Amino acid sequence: MRFLDKLQNVWSKNKSLVCVGLDSDRNKIPAHLRSLKTPLFDFNKVIVDHTADLVCAYKLQFAFYGGAGAEAELESSIRYIRERAPESVVILDAKRGDIGNTAELYAQEAFERYGADAVTVNPYMGGDTLEPFLKWEEKGTIVLCRTSNPGAQDFQDLESSGKKLFEIVADHAARRWNSRGNVALVVGATYPSELRLVREIVGDMPLLVPGVGAQGGDVESAVKFGIDSAGAGMIINSSRGIIFASSGEDFGVAAHGAAAKLREEINLARQNQGISV
Amino acid sequence: MRFLDKLQNVWSKNKSLVCVGLDSDRNKIPAHLRSLKTPLFDFNKVIVDHTADLVCAYKLQFAFYGGAGAEAELESSIRYIRERAPESVVILDAKRGDIGNTAELYAQEAFERYGADAVTVNPYMGGDTLEPFLKWEEKGTIVLCRTSNPGAQDFQDLESSGKKLFEIVADHAARRWNSRGNVALVVGATYPSELRLVREIVGDMPLLVPGVGAQGGDVESAVKFGIDSAGAGMIINSSRGIIFASSGEDFGVAAHGAAAKLREEINLARQNQGISV
Repeated sequence: MRFLDKLQNVWSKNKSLVCVGLDSDRNKIPAHLRSLKTPLFDFNKVIVDHTADLVCAYKLQFAFYGGAGAEAELESSIRYIRERAPESVVILDAKRGDIGNTAELYAQEAFERYGADAVTVNPYMGGDTLEPFLKWEEKGTIVLCRTSNPGAQDFQDLESSGKKLFEIVADHAARRWNSRGNVALVVGATYPSELRLVREIVGDMPLLVPGVGAQGGDVESAVKFGIDSAGAGMIINSSRGIIFASSGEDFGVAAHGAAAKLREEINLARQNQGISV
Repeated sequence: MRFLDKLQNVWSKNKSLVCVGLDSDRNKIPAHLRSLKTPLFDFNKVIVDHTADLVCAYKLQFAFYGGAGAEAELESSIRYIRERAPESVVILDAKRGDIGNTAELYAQEAFERYGADAVTVNPYMGGDTLEPFLKWEEKGTIVLCRTSNPGAQDFQDLESSGKKLFEIVADHAARRWNSRGNVALVVGATYPSELRLVREIVGDMPLLVPGVGAQGGDVESAVKFGIDSAGAGMIINSSRGIIFASSGEDFGVAAHGAAAKLREEINLARQNQGISV
């Protein structure tokens, strides 16, 4: 199924805009798992088991696997999600960006080797570096637009001819890159007014929104400014707030509770905008 | 040894600004190697054996290893360079860029797991995302500035308050990020006038210059506009032009010839600028 169809299906079926970020840091997972042979995979399995019906997506941050030499656990985690939560969207958060022949390989890595539904990419090098991803029509290409970190403003807020760089990126995404309907953008929940601007520029394009929870983004305003015309359109990511909700053996149950709470909070915010969920 | 010291040492010892890009594409290496158990590693070994005294650096493009599930061959290739060409600088070309805790892991991946001397990073997300790399004082952080691809102009050339984005990035690199003297910039040989501008902004900061050879950049003008005040300051990368100079069993000898020719061409261009090499 195409990325956007899959998203719309799971948004509606699970009544959820929640994305669980599997930032499965070897040093932060519960102590009793750390001595296992595949600690990240075992950890992820429990999280997925306890959240499958509560979320629209799982986002796997490449660094937590690449940094630990655990590419095999990244592969097996994604395979597990496919089996256990086949309707959810799997996002490989690798923030790739490179010239043509190299970008082709990164697209193969994300979509074939890891079997992700979508991958995050960095627009700095220009539109020709995104094309090798975009031509995978069934897959999603999620372009960094206005990120959630404090330094995002260094370059993304620079103004050129009256528009900020992130607005220009959003404009390119909507008018040039999205001819196949498979583009989404990253916009941090920590910057609600930027989120509103991007939503105005891109119409109903899906937005991946990190930054709620540990990074301090407010759910109510993120939803208010980020939802599309159908009251969905967002993949709202929480990582540490869900997966490390407990550091004990009850971490799966705690993750369930945290994901359910975030879903509820988001759905209440949607209802406050007149959306029936 | 610190990144910059190591560079200056090898520039002088090998009289070379040449960097060999180990873009060791499984589908392009000589046919007789493809059925081996570690084809990329075996290929790289031969290239390194034949070029060790002709170059200042080796650049390993992450995608050719990550895309092929060959991280172990990336590790062993870098270890081999360390033994066989201990004075050369090893650059991991991974173009990383992510928020704080994630960037920490990418720095560990590049500098500990792979043992590279330097890593390429993407500035789009802002200065705070570079700091986790910069704090590795002995290591080099090589920031994308003006890339060699046609689409580089899409965003890197946008003007804000009379300066283009890549000039603003160069300015940040020189005035903010380089307090430890471990920053370098990527500027494509395909854009000589941009190279000149960057050199004016950053003084003697090292520049990693891709784009000669297959991408069409001209060596004479790259050297003219890119060298530092001592007539060095550049890491001029050629990948396909060297490593795929022959597709037969003589590929090592052919790579030696191509690397020697590029070194000579660069040194002639330096001499034309009044530098004694």
